[in-house]
Amino acid sequence: MIKVGIVGGTGYTGVELLRLLARHPQVELTAITSRKEAGMKVADMFPNLRGRVGLAFTTPEEAGLEKCDVVFFATPNGVAMQQTRALLDAGVKVIDLAADFRIKDVKEWESWYKLEHACPDLIAEAVYGLPEVNREAIKKARLIANPGCYPTAAQLGFLPLIENGLVDTSHLVADCKSGVSGAGRKAETHILFAEAADNFKAYAVSGHRHLPEIRQGLSIAAGHQVGLTFVPHLTPLIRGIHATLYARLSKTDVDLQALYEKRYAGEPFVDVLPAGSHPETRSVRGANICRIALHRPQAGDVVVVLSVIDNLVKGAAGQAVQNMNLMFGFVETTAIDEIGLLP
Amino acid sequence: MIKVGIVGGTGYTGVELLRLLARHPQVELTAITSRKEAGMKVADMFPNLRGRVGLAFTTPEEAGLEKCDVVFFATPNGVAMQQTRALLDAGVKVIDLAADFRIKDVKEWESWYKLEHACPDLIAEAVYGLPEVNREAIKKARLIANPGCYPTAAQLGFLPLIENGLVDTSHLVADCKSGVSGAGRKAETHILFAEAADNFKAYAVSGHRHLPEIRQGLSIAAGHQVGLTFVPHLTPLIRGIHATLYARLSKTDVDLQALYEKRYAGEPFVDVLPAGSHPETRSVRGANICRIALHRPQAGDVVVVLSVIDNLVKGAAGQAVQNMNLMFGFVETTAIDEIGLLP
Amino acid sequence: MIKVGIVGGTGYTGVELLRLLARHPQVELTAITSRKEAGMKVADMFPNLRGRVGLAFTTPEEAGLEKCDVVFFATPNGVAMQQTRALLDAGVKVIDLAADFRIKDVKEWESWYKLEHACPDLIAEAVYGLPEVNREAIKKARLIANPGCYPTAAQLGFLPLIENGLVDTSHLVADCKSGVSGAGRKAETHILFAEAADNFKAYAVSGHRHLPEIRQGLSIAAGHQVGLTFVPHLTPLIRGIHATLYARLSKTDVDLQALYEKRYAGEPFVDVLPAGSHPETRSVRGANICRIALHRPQAGDVVVVLSVIDNLVKGAAGQAVQNMNLMFGFVETTAIDEIGLLP
Amino acid sequence: MIKVGIVGGTGYTGVELLRLLARHPQVELTAITSRKEAGMKVADMFPNLRGRVGLAFTTPEEAGLEKCDVVFFATPNGVAMQQTRALLDAGVKVIDLAADFRIKDVKEWESWYKLEHACPDLIAEAVYGLPEVNREAIKKARLIANPGCYPTAAQLGFLPLIENGLVDTSHLVADCKSGVSGAGRKAETHILFAEAADNFKAYAVSGHRHLPEIRQGLSIAAGHQVGLTFVPHLTPLIRGIHATLYARLSKTDVDLQALYEKRYAGEPFVDVLPAGSHPETRSVRGANICRIALHRPQAGDVVVVLSVIDNLVKGAAGQAVQNMNLMFGFVETTAIDEIGLLP
Repeated sequence: MIKVGIVGGTGYTGVELLRLLARHPQVELTAITSRKEAGMKVADMFPNLRGRVGLAFTTPEEAGLEKCDVVFFATPNGVAMQQTRALLDAGVKVIDLAADFRIKDVKEWESWYKLEHACPDLIAEAVYGLPEVNREAIKKARLIANPGCYPTAAQLGFLPLIENGLVDTSHLVADCKSGVSGAGRKAETHILFAEAADNFKAYAVSGHRHLPEIRQGLSIAAGHQVGLTFVPHLTPLIRGIHATLYARLSKTDVDLQALYEKRYAGEPFVDVLPAGSHPETRSVRGANICRIALHRPQAGDVVVVLSVIDNLVKGAAGQAVQNMNLMFGFVETTAIDEIGLLP
Repeated sequence: MIKVGIVGGTGYTGVELLRLLARHPQVELTAITSRKEAGMKVADMFPNLRGRVGLAFTTPEEAGLEKCDVVFFATPNGVAMQQTRALLDAGVKVIDLAADFRIKDVKEWESWYKLEHACPDLIAEAVYGLPEVNREAIKKARLIANPGCYPTAAQLGFLPLIENGLVDTSHLVADCKSGVSGAGRKAETHILFAEAADNFKAYAVSGHRHLPEIRQGLSIAAGHQVGLTFVPHLTPLIRGIHATLYARLSKTDVDLQALYEKRYAGEPFVDVLPAGSHPETRSVRGANICRIALHRPQAGDVVVVLSVIDNLVKGAAGQAVQNMNLMFGFVETTAIDEIGLLP
Repeated sequence: MIKVGIVGGTGYTGVELLRLLARHPQVELTAITSRKEAGMKVADMFPNLRGRVGLAFTTPEEAGLEKCDVVFFATPNGVAMQQTRALLDAGVKVIDLAADFRIKDVKEWESWYKLEHACPDLIAEAVYGLPEVNREAIKKARLIANPGCYPTAAQLGFLPLIENGLVDTSHLVADCKSGVSGAGRKAETHILFAEAADNFKAYAVSGHRHLPEIRQGLSIAAGHQVGLTFVPHLTPLIRGIHATLYARLSKTDVDLQALYEKRYAGEPFVDVLPAGSHPETRSVRGANICRIALHRPQAGDVVVVLSVIDNLVKGAAGQAVQNMNLMFGFVETTAIDEIGLLP
Repeated sequence: MIKVGIVGGTGYTGVELLRLLARHPQVELTAITSRKEAGMKVADMFPNLRGRVGLAFTTPEEAGLEKCDVVFFATPNGVAMQQTRALLDAGVKVIDLAADFRIKDVKEWESWYKLEHACPDLIAEAVYGLPEVNREAIKKARLIANPGCYPTAAQLGFLPLIENGLVDTSHLVADCKSGVSGAGRKAETHILFAEAADNFKAYAVSGHRHLPEIRQGLSIAAGHQVGLTFVPHLTPLIRGIHATLYARLSKTDVDLQALYEKRYAGEPFVDVLPAGSHPETRSVRGANICRIALHRPQAGDVVVVLSVIDNLVKGAAGQAVQNMNLMFGFVETTAIDEIGLLP
């Protein structure tokens, strides 16, 4: 039984962490902080938790986070970097669901996030929490940079191609579509129901913060800097990301299907569909899994990879729990083995 | 470990049964039948089940249902009544998710369902599977008539008022709204996305088959025949029923909130919200629970009860598993204790 | 050609007024005000208007509203009452789409709206802009209180019954469902897509501001105070209101269908459907029309009236233009004769 | 005043034609055929048309189509080619909204559509009805092949680049997203609300029938065969197509924004947004317009074009009416100048 704290639990990754952790047999939920909502019962804000999570929000000061075994940061960017060192010094492991520790190049991070980083040395220590790439390092880590939602879907889709040097890495394209919960639980006009329902649009085409994160992961896999065009779109789903990935094959005589199946053979949370399939976001709704399918339209030299996740689960809270399971030696699938809710 | 069969698993109650039963530690899924889809893997039709349910659809002949301990009928009305006697004779328990055994008055059933009943004597034996009313009888039953979705929400909402003789039972009103999955997984034009999205309508106002079922349950509780106006509506949700119930109080000096809290105090799957609350369907999405709230607008003599369920869980498959748990002496909440998926 | 000004055009009723007025052959759009967005082109906020409305938002001071022939207030409650007298004194007609002049009883208005009224004498002068009731008075009015969305649907549905004394007016029930645009274009959490999509809930059951407005209209029609239970619900539509109205018939030998058809025979914007119909909100999407259908379930003594409108058109901007047409002697249907957008 | 007939009016393009043509001052709607629904009033199937379109469906035999001035085919592929010659011979102009006359290469058409073509000579005569490319030919045409929805959005987006030889035409990418009405009004399971809502998926990645159509148009513009990867997706909108187009620039010193603005300067139904914009599908809901925006992410050598239309208007019925207007010398914008419905 480990003691778990959550900083900033009023957003969607917060409630999703609670939903998953409430069912975890080796977890004791100790504290969830929100300065603004201190005193309010979590279940009063998120009524799905009624009868299942008795905690109330507390101020950070009262939370006693330093007595936890692990603390999750489900906060806006720039918060975790202020509090992580003290927690690590107190022997607490940290999993940051925001972006504070994801980009190894501090200057690049600062230019995209418009903040000065509070602890560049910890960036170096932090392990990028994509278990399919860094499982062994995660097991030994004190500090996890939990991947972004788009980066999870895009990297898992591209990786086997890149790792095996099969495609032209100078002109990769990631056309990605996200449900609206990816924008967070913020009172902003453009994500109102009456604005976002029955509507589809691209956004941030000139540059989205997940671009350097995806590019970093793929560049490490390639062994050299890759070129990537990344276009995110908002689609009227509550949950779900669909990445449609395009690359030009430099070798066309490889059995890509076999390659992907082998790459992910032992992975509990990556499902390679039969050739020619079209994964649906609803097939992963609420589930900690990435489903991937491969296509070579008209048997040409372009490979199209389709990759879907639930942005709040494998793209955020579920992957964070997966990392926690690895860090504490629990069975990796504990509490994140739910079946997707379909329909 | 019991052997479980499902007849007719290609609809939404079928896939929902599979989702729940796949996680049940005392259940071995033995067979799922569909004459039309025989040979197809269940997970090829419902990709959320990939890696979790290995079964393929079989014809009823090959299914070996008579070797099961319990068989669920997730079939259109009129199917279960043809096969139930043989199964019962073979020692198999039966839970019918359709309406074949719900109405005790055979003539009334036949007039609403436009069929001649195949086994009127079994109607008499069947137990109406609403655990909050018939728990002890369910434990001993061989044959369960699993309640309809609207009837579950409406009865749980009305029962404490009726049982205690607090309202004028001659003019009850149940204004109910259902998500589109309640119409089933049938290729019909009016439930197409482009017809049902961004649209709201009433239907079957002249008479819906759930009317006699609700009326029967309330009349038993009242000890006399009640008068009910029931208007169902289709609302653009995938899952969810919201019942708004109106009754005129014959006694206005009763603490209704305390009455409801007491009535459902021991119930694992009925949640009475604080006075003045507004339950949301999303708070029960994917969960086997009914949430209820009470109002007396302007402190007048009209009581308004709000009652929400997930039509596929507490309104169908979840309640069916709850009945199975009771019939076999399992812990009542086994495999149906999931937290609602919010957002 | 009349000069038209709009105060507060950044909300949904504002953009809808612009959409309709841009096509009005006798209207010159002169000014649209928004202190916050002054200088921004209207079409930059509402891109559907690109190439069709060239106006930019201006401050109220610059707008020159006193030179308009008519000014629409598409503002929060409490704004119009501050500016109406000066406009009337300058010879400008005023149509208030908010609630400032809807309730004749000042004390009741102040208790529901938590404001002191700035000009009670103008309340007395204001004409309630429901053309189906007050057409002749509207033609002569200087000041119109444009009805609320729920009140439009509910009154048009109930009126023939009430006017003819056919029902028990002590216990009317209006169970109403609204699309999310009815909550306005405000950055509030509960109307975010990820909160309101795939969700259904009642709200303000203890008392909604449209209750006294509906009750006032029905009481005038009845000639005495009526008793009404009004329960509004939020449903995941962008646009649309569906009112389901219940009343107990005091006379059951009246041909209600004929009565309704006669009552609304000359009305261009009320459509009585054939008996037994179920009007759909999508059939009025974008259109200035109320469609009504009548039911007497099981031929009992309860009449159920179904009434649908588009809350932004017949429930707000369209009705306001209808009132303007009447006030200026234009053909009543000018610019508001669009056909609903289906699908 | 011209006489207009519609063959096959029970689908979404049929009702949309009726919605638009009902408001056309030079059109007399003469006949709408549906063998299956003969005798039913159009407004009984599509209640938005109540009071506006009095026609009933008739059998083709009774319709007297040969007395019309123009006949629209809103039919499945393969119908128009059976009836077009007789109509042309009778002096009737024909606009086919299906694909029978879109592909000039008969063999290619037959291989994609799995039909033998009934009148290859008429393919040669047919004019591809994209006014922005073929306006003058359309004016003189007897037979119009009205473009597909994806092809309209993709071609209008790509054309200025291709016509000016600015991009590598061997590896174009069109990642397109369509609302569900694009799949038609057919009773099929995969487009049910409970399947398509809150879900996103690609489909037909191995090859969609619009691929050869887009490729043909772009190849004509290029003067040589282009290479195109086209991936369509289904997104939970009722209406709307969003095309995200990718190409590698062969010249990077061209002012693309100016180029597009000049190319479409005189076009009433193409709107080039300011550089850096993100067009939304809702901005064209119900409107006959294509909105386009250009991006060069990180100022690299990849150009991203965003192009949105309403699939039923500029992507089908609206464009068909535009073609009719051109063929008969009417003002091109007549009856198709509606403003998009937002929100």
